[in-house]
Amino acid sequence: MQSNQSSHEEEPFRVRKLEMSDKSKGFIELLQQLTVCDSVSDKQFEERFQELSSYGDDHVICVIEDKCCGKIVATGSVFIEKKFIRSCGKVGHIEDVVVDSSSRGMQLGKKIVEFLTDHACSMGCYKVILDCSTENQEFYEKCGFKKKEIQMVKYFI
Amino acid sequence: MQSNQSSHEEEPFRVRKLEMSDKSKGFIELLQQLTVCDSVSDKQFEERFQELSSYGDDHVICVIEDKCCGKIVATGSVFIEKKFIRSCGKVGHIEDVVVDSSSRGMQLGKKIVEFLTDHACSMGCYKVILDCSTENQEFYEKCGFKKKEIQMVKYFI
Repeated sequence: MQSNQSSHEEEPFRVRKLEMSDKSKGFIELLQQLTVCDSVSDKQFEERFQELSSYGDDHVICVIEDKCCGKIVATGSVFIEKKFIRSCGKVGHIEDVVVDSSSRGMQLGKKIVEFLTDHACSMGCYKVILDCSTENQEFYEKCGFKKKEIQMVKYFI
Repeated sequence: MQSNQSSHEEEPFRVRKLEMSDKSKGFIELLQQLTVCDSVSDKQFEERFQELSSYGDDHVICVIEDKCCGKIVATGSVFIEKKFIRSCGKVGHIEDVVVDSSSRGMQLGKKIVEFLTDHACSMGCYKVILDCSTENQEFYEKCGFKKKEIQMVKYFI
């Protein structure tokens, strides 16, 4: 593959960790395709970014940037929960996986989930979990997940 | 109620935060009723306890001690996830709720869930979530939760 592509074209959809500059590359607009996500000021973004960075490898947000247009087209996060069960085991929680509507069908979601799953595994987790709608069940099964329990929620607002 | 009971008898099943000394009060044995939980050495317990304590209010484990026998009879945990969605919102994740098999039918589970839910609310979360089996759905509905999504899992071991 390398012989047919220039270095610029290598890994055009590489998964990497979120960077501060990604706010100006449409990161928040991408999250708005997932759920309610009002505009976030630069200050709010920087504060939350720094807060999450302080957790180091215990909370990772990854993104895929479309190098052609400099736009963030996929993201997802994982945080590591530390427990007493399973001999003081750890569990990875995957959250907020979304792929830009114009970039679907390119396996970017699978790349994101694999990156997050690999991270949880490398952190010594005994399992990784996530909650999704039934319509996304098949996608996660293709990523190696199995349905287990049900999610219950209580909203405060 | 106070006029009929001595101060010793007040709140015999009060919810409080986990303390280091709770290991010798059957805390790990209680977790063993929930899932796989091999024995944990004092050193392992202390290290994990300190690690979780460093998160402050962002990760709380609560317990109920039966004052009559000095035994931990119920527990549960909640940790606060910080997001970018919902205007840099926060979500409480409830985990590892269990009531001792000999202490069921006394609403201790409800007390634990209410304590954890109130904590998440006081931390400014916009919602609190948990995963459970379908057989526990009714219990959580009584605690004010509603079924929403499905949980997917991938085990590494």
